Amino acid sequence: MKFQSPRGTRDFLPEEMIRLEYVMNVLKKIFEKYGFENFETPAFENFELLAAKGGGGDAIKDQIYYFKDKSDRELGLRFDLTVPLARVVANNPQLPKAFKRYCIGRVWRYEEIRKDRFREFWQCDIDTVGSSNMDADTEILAIVVESLEALGFKKFCVKLNNRKILAGLIEVIKASEEKRFDVFRAIDKLDKFGEDTVKTELENAGLSKNQIDQLFRLIKLEGSPEDVLKKGEKILNETIIGSEGLKELNEIVNFSESYGFTDKIVIDFSLARGLDYYTGPIFEVIDTSGKNIGSLAGGGRYDKLIEIFGGRSTPATGISFGIERIIEVMKEEKMLDLPKTRVKVFVANVNEDVKKETVKIAKKLRKDGISCQVDLMNRNLTKQLEFANSLGIPYVVIIGPKELKNKSVVVRDMRKKKESEVKIEKITKALK
Amino acid sequence: MKFQSPRGTRDFLPEEMIRLEYVMNVLKKIFEKYGFENFETPAFENFELLAAKGGGGDAIKDQIYYFKDKSDRELGLRFDLTVPLARVVANNPQLPKAFKRYCIGRVWRYEEIRKDRFREFWQCDIDTVGSSNMDADTEILAIVVESLEALGFKKFCVKLNNRKILAGLIEVIKASEEKRFDVFRAIDKLDKFGEDTVKTELENAGLSKNQIDQLFRLIKLEGSPEDVLKKGEKILNETIIGSEGLKELNEIVNFSESYGFTDKIVIDFSLARGLDYYTGPIFEVIDTSGKNIGSLAGGGRYDKLIEIFGGRSTPATGISFGIERIIEVMKEEKMLDLPKTRVKVFVANVNEDVKKETVKIAKKLRKDGISCQVDLMNRNLTKQLEFANSLGIPYVVIIGPKELKNKSVVVRDMRKKKESEVKIEKITKALK
Repeated sequence: MKFQSPRGTRDFLPEEMIRLEYVMNVLKKIFEKYGFENFETPAFENFELLAAKGGGGDAIKDQIYYFKDKSDRELGLRFDLTVPLARVVANNPQLPKAFKRYCIGRVWRYEEIRKDRFREFWQCDIDTVGSSNMDADTEILAIVVESLEALGFKKFCVKLNNRKILAGLIEVIKASEEKRFDVFRAIDKLDKFGEDTVKTELENAGLSKNQIDQLFRLIKLEGSPEDVLKKGEKILNETIIGSEGLKELNEIVNFSESYGFTDKIVIDFSLARGLDYYTGPIFEVIDTSGKNIGSLAGGGRYDKLIEIFGGRSTPATGISFGIERIIEVMKEEKMLDLPKTRVKVFVANVNEDVKKETVKIAKKLRKDGISCQVDLMNRNLTKQLEFANSLGIPYVVIIGPKELKNKSVVVRDMRKKKESEVKIEKITKALK
Repeated sequence: MKFQSPRGTRDFLPEEMIRLEYVMNVLKKIFEKYGFENFETPAFENFELLAAKGGGGDAIKDQIYYFKDKSDRELGLRFDLTVPLARVVANNPQLPKAFKRYCIGRVWRYEEIRKDRFREFWQCDIDTVGSSNMDADTEILAIVVESLEALGFKKFCVKLNNRKILAGLIEVIKASEEKRFDVFRAIDKLDKFGEDTVKTELENAGLSKNQIDQLFRLIKLEGSPEDVLKKGEKILNETIIGSEGLKELNEIVNFSESYGFTDKIVIDFSLARGLDYYTGPIFEVIDTSGKNIGSLAGGGRYDKLIEIFGGRSTPATGISFGIERIIEVMKEEKMLDLPKTRVKVFVANVNEDVKKETVKIAKKLRKDGISCQVDLMNRNLTKQLEFANSLGIPYVVIIGPKELKNKSVVVRDMRKKKESEVKIEKITKALK
């Protein structure tokens, strides 16, 4: 190979693309039913914007594709779909609120390449901008649940926590503000690495045994959402921020009943999610089939981000689907039983003389909405059949002079290896 | 505005995106009917690949977004969809031929910014790889004609020429090989700048008056495709390459009859198309409604390109739709009568107490495939109606306690400003 695709990227050949588009279309249809609209922003942004999310500074340069244009403007490929959304909302205060948009597009991160982790990958986000009410968050979660069910996922749960509860927790155990993110980072590992690891990390962060015990009393709570929230109240009710967080989660649980997904909710006070900009509820959708699949979607409320980007103070909430991971899981679990090709019919010719007829028959089939190909390689019939077979085309319509005289053709079912003569006027019916 | 979108780029807000997606979907559907499959490659490529198309060298750097990754690998954003296709075909000799793919994606060129010309823009390409037969080219043209007609274009033509005819012409007038591209460049301007300009340019290129006269005898030929080709024969029949070019165009005209678009073909021997890599038929689709719209699509056969990229010698032909220009024209000509929003219904509440009911009604409507929104802003009914109106949502379903007792709701037609009470079980029917 003289030229390869750039390191960390991959091509989507038709077979792979059929899968990607199938998943995209299932999701798009659901988003649109809920009144979310599609939206697209440039592949790259001004570097200053990308840096602003992390509080400015050059640190982010190492994690993105950074470059300059010919006028020395600093640019970078977008690393997520939230930053561009925040920019657009900041710059378009006239957009009616709540502004609900989805975006399915590629993002680029300069990260270590691993199996199934590329530097260029697809993301799929839905966000509701302008509403500070928990019905916005609940709707987002309802969409995620409906989407995953539509894709065929059966065992999964929506883990729910609130940044305000975590803040309350810091108050309760009287840890200093600076330790806040160390604590979040540590407890976020509970699921993956277990109690001992988390405790060691918390000790290293300078927490006392007593503080750690208090922390664990909350983050280990289990049970139905109502139960966990009630038990949480006893621990957190002395803090204003913690109570507020609980109230919000109670509202989400309450609203979820109208949507009918309360049984999917698991309140997990150890859920922290890395990104700093979350301000309220945070969510993570986890596969619970017992396979080590990890997160299928994740997000939360970010009420301060649009202000950072120069907009009016505007609440917002959203979630991001791990669309490429979802597809990988679906492939492994045989949940994607899709044909290799969308082409349904190959219209073959017995010889040169009837080539024009194949085009006419193909034209008729296409008019009836049937995807078909004709021979473009001047191949003999055997080779044409081989080609159709190699592509996985399920039917071949064979045009020969003898049958044409009877105004008919031969229809061959490639899987059953059966042929039958069909009148031309009835081909479409025979193929449907 | 604190942060803007990068210079030369633009955002596609929902209203614009609805247009773009409408056009894309019309095209995709036709491409798929003809058995073309979707396909996607990375946004950037190794610089060496991008440079190879122009024969290697750094010249292209000025026209693209060029950058390096952290390991100093030279990269560039793709400037078209043909180069990545050629790379993939070169690297995947196992792909069954003819390989027919379409690709709708963004490309980036560092060009002067003008009204309606951006540095980031959408392209839409269809290509058939592996076939050297003219039925492949004819099929491409049939798709273009069907696509433009499906979009509502009525007056347009497919201009057709052949690089081999142009090569024959150079032989006939006995111009030196080096002058070839100067000549092509000059005659390509005939339509836009007229005879005098072209003649002056040809003189400047060193052609004699006699040579120029000979040239004009061919490039000014007019009439039906059959006529022009026949007249062309008299001038070109002494050259092997020229005769071959004529034979190919004759075949296309002949095949076009089965598809039924012969009346759209205009043979124009002055058509040259800038890009050097064309080797056979070249096409350009022109609006003929009298408005100065220019080219709607353009392409041709490029039998050598895949070899340049390290593949086996593989013939190929394709066309590129100027998708953003097409949309601009359609907007100006009012050919895109699309709603501002896909949302069909806003389910409003009369007060807080019935909010849960709005979610349940929305759930029912969504199940029936109707896109709807509920209030997420705790607005009163008047404000909810204002919001629905500002978004252009055509119907509002109003939920009130009084009507709920009758198991009914109020359906408001926002355009006709008419309301009627409808039983809940019959809402979907009433809205359809």
